Amino acid sequence: MADARRDTDLEKRITEQGNLVRKLKGEKAPIEQINEEVQKLLKLKSELQEREGPKKFVLKTGKGTRDYSPKDMALREKVFQVIVSTFKRHGAETIDTPVFELKDTLTGKYGEDSKLIYDLADQGGEILSLRYDLTVPFARYVAMNKIDNIKRYHIAKVYRRDNPAMTRGRYREFYQCDFDIAGQFDPMVPDAECLRIVHEILGGLDVGPYIVKVNHRKILDGIFATCGVPEDKFRPICSAVDKLDKTFWEDVRLEMVEEKGLDPQVADLIGEYVSLKGGADLISKLEADERLMGDKRTVEGLKDMKLLLKYCQLFGMEDRVSFDLSLARGLDYYTGVIYEAVLLGTKVNESSDSEVVGVGSVCGGGRYDNLVGMFAAKQKTVPCVGLSIGVERIFSILEAKAKREKLSVRTTETEVFVAAAQKNLLDQRMELCTLLWDADIKTEQSYKKNPKLLNQFQYCEENGIPLCVIIGQSELEQKIVKLRNVSTREERAVPRENMIEEIRKELSTCLQK
Amino acid sequence: MADARRDTDLEKRITEQGNLVRKLKGEKAPIEQINEEVQKLLKLKSELQEREGPKKFVLKTGKGTRDYSPKDMALREKVFQVIVSTFKRHGAETIDTPVFELKDTLTGKYGEDSKLIYDLADQGGEILSLRYDLTVPFARYVAMNKIDNIKRYHIAKVYRRDNPAMTRGRYREFYQCDFDIAGQFDPMVPDAECLRIVHEILGGLDVGPYIVKVNHRKILDGIFATCGVPEDKFRPICSAVDKLDKTFWEDVRLEMVEEKGLDPQVADLIGEYVSLKGGADLISKLEADERLMGDKRTVEGLKDMKLLLKYCQLFGMEDRVSFDLSLARGLDYYTGVIYEAVLLGTKVNESSDSEVVGVGSVCGGGRYDNLVGMFAAKQKTVPCVGLSIGVERIFSILEAKAKREKLSVRTTETEVFVAAAQKNLLDQRMELCTLLWDADIKTEQSYKKNPKLLNQFQYCEENGIPLCVIIGQSELEQKIVKLRNVSTREERAVPRENMIEEIRKELSTCLQK
Repeated sequence: MADARRDTDLEKRITEQGNLVRKLKGEKAPIEQINEEVQKLLKLKSELQEREGPKKFVLKTGKGTRDYSPKDMALREKVFQVIVSTFKRHGAETIDTPVFELKDTLTGKYGEDSKLIYDLADQGGEILSLRYDLTVPFARYVAMNKIDNIKRYHIAKVYRRDNPAMTRGRYREFYQCDFDIAGQFDPMVPDAECLRIVHEILGGLDVGPYIVKVNHRKILDGIFATCGVPEDKFRPICSAVDKLDKTFWEDVRLEMVEEKGLDPQVADLIGEYVSLKGGADLISKLEADERLMGDKRTVEGLKDMKLLLKYCQLFGMEDRVSFDLSLARGLDYYTGVIYEAVLLGTKVNESSDSEVVGVGSVCGGGRYDNLVGMFAAKQKTVPCVGLSIGVERIFSILEAKAKREKLSVRTTETEVFVAAAQKNLLDQRMELCTLLWDADIKTEQSYKKNPKLLNQFQYCEENGIPLCVIIGQSELEQKIVKLRNVSTREERAVPRENMIEEIRKELSTCLQK
Repeated sequence: MADARRDTDLEKRITEQGNLVRKLKGEKAPIEQINEEVQKLLKLKSELQEREGPKKFVLKTGKGTRDYSPKDMALREKVFQVIVSTFKRHGAETIDTPVFELKDTLTGKYGEDSKLIYDLADQGGEILSLRYDLTVPFARYVAMNKIDNIKRYHIAKVYRRDNPAMTRGRYREFYQCDFDIAGQFDPMVPDAECLRIVHEILGGLDVGPYIVKVNHRKILDGIFATCGVPEDKFRPICSAVDKLDKTFWEDVRLEMVEEKGLDPQVADLIGEYVSLKGGADLISKLEADERLMGDKRTVEGLKDMKLLLKYCQLFGMEDRVSFDLSLARGLDYYTGVIYEAVLLGTKVNESSDSEVVGVGSVCGGGRYDNLVGMFAAKQKTVPCVGLSIGVERIFSILEAKAKREKLSVRTTETEVFVAAAQKNLLDQRMELCTLLWDADIKTEQSYKKNPKLLNQFQYCEENGIPLCVIIGQSELEQKIVKLRNVSTREERAVPRENMIEEIRKELSTCLQK
């Protein structure tokens, strides 16, 4: 009791001291004074800790990370299956790279975002960092192995020390799902295939209608030049334009003028261009703009864009593509075509639903012709074009949908449960399981010696297991088993010698339903 | 020239200073003196670095890690497919956990090996470490989510700052492949199923004959007690016994006596027991040993072992199991049955082959009933039993085999290549690709506008693509395509309207072959 009282007293003093520190900080008191009081606070806290004995163990995952439960994984497997089969439909190989790279490999690739890179502790040896995306490791791989051309996909987790908005499906550890084509090819042929792949993947997932916005870094640069943006401000202005999908033009203009010191008249000129979108009509319109066509980059970019739209038509997806001058993409390394797929009209914003999933980009990518050269000896370049599927966003959307529609997801693929109707039949159940496993039938049984029949049936129903094989003393004597259809609850006797065959028949009927 | 000479001079001074430091360390000179000389050395080195300008960028992966090429991945996918389908045949779910855990979660779980854990840099916030295995994260997951029972598999990479022996397939980043059953069940039922799973997996992979050694920690502890090992030396003596599969008894005995201070007579007694192996006969022999049966642990362990061997018989794998008293397993957390699968007779030791793959353990596991309790509030225990497939070792074995037998592995699944016999047919090729992709046929074409026909054929042959669709001006006019069987080089004309159907037919014939 005495000890407990002393603890409470100490806790009170810690609270008071904490309040004092916050007050001083609020008043912007001299730093020496604040530090002094902070020291006192830390001393009090360590005193409390000592009294409480060893620090209590906190049972959690690292900030911004989470476990994936069997339900989470079942959905992820389905989504990956659609994505991977699309990549394979286009003849892609897959590679894997280590989760960490030499820190130097990542340095200078992500601009401002470099501060979000996770470093490993210096435990003697090399300085390492967790990968931030899959594109830079890919470029490093291509350069290191002196590869001239490759078409590969890579599905893996990447790491960003961001402030996670976990309720909106944003984490510090998350899956990326990349497809890239590296090699020297004819203009827009691999680029168009990337768009076709986006089209097939989004069509194959249950995410509703979508549109793929396309633009071209050369066209943007040409417009910037024509409007009067100085060359050294191209990338900052580009990243301001990139915010147009999330905010109004007024805010973007403010950023250009106030933060990035652009002439207001120049900003207004840009504003007119980046509000344009369309198809072949927009290309014609821009081609008619003589001032614009005075810049070589615009001419080249428009030539590419024309070809790309034609190829999209040949690939049967012209109605899905929108040439959109407001699309800029955040990353610095793009050099040509850029694109982003957005879902239309899946706004889930029911007040009943804790998870709010907004409409947004679910896929992005573009051409980056100089990244491999940054790693290669003699600056040998390997042009690349690729895409990254925003799987985490897709998971959120599909999870919210499943919740709304109260869909149940099976987390196992078990086809048959072997049940006993009486006690002391574990050995006989085991023999049956062996027969079924040998026949490659997915089979479970209870790990208890004498489970209740009702519990065994309940397990089947809860886990969506379609068939149940039941044995009792009389079935053993007659050399039969009872085959139960779990959903209809119908049971019929089957001779043991026909059991496998009958189960296969029933399963194929279940699958057809 | 002058500069170059100065550099060489500096390098010479660095070498000399390095030698001095090593000499002092060798002589165990006073630490202050060593530190002083080390400081001088560092100063010289940084001087050199400054002169050389920015450090040259090194193009490599982190020490002990590697990329997986498309060929590596193709083999891995096949192996994982066998393993995962076995886990699913037994009704397992899958989960995933973050690649890093709070450091506290890993602390105190790995004994001496804790020094091999990779820590993340302290960038403000939590102290994190990369996972060392999948078992501790699993136990943390079960405790954190208050799970009473679960049967799950987890395939992911783990991290150990070991001195990698990469030529022998040992890396600092490598895949683990775990299956575990957690929950309160009847004795040996889940344990036996784990052995059955090992049996199915090794039978499904092309790794030759194997044997699963089984033992029981309680039997070992009982033997140790009976022989006169003090309780506090059980685990150290156990880990000495664990080395019996790699070294001779004489060395193990030496470790027990010299390093671990065991009475030589006690060691000799242990030596007699741990040389025993067999089946039911060995159980009877031990049961007849009155001294041994005086220890409760031995009695309990033998009861388990009897049941386990019976269940293995019911599971049709009695000839694969060997009760082997020399099996000890390294990890501290095992509490019951332990097992290890070893391949027999795949010794690859050809002098021509740079990769030497020895016979060894390809799977291990056992029962660990107290690990979840280390994380759970109120020490609630959830008994567990599981196994870990040594996939990296299996990869090495299969890679060496493929190399030996000169097997070629396809890295893509492409079924059809669309080729043009003349120039300027890119648009028409694209239209054909669209038709094929829409029909879910895996299709590739050249990304060049005007590829040579021979190059297109060569691509098909090199990549094992079974079919080629060829168009030229005359085919277009006649509304046909030429369908070429790549391996036989036979070609036949097919009307365009029947193309998909004919391709499907040919593909199913190719698959049957």
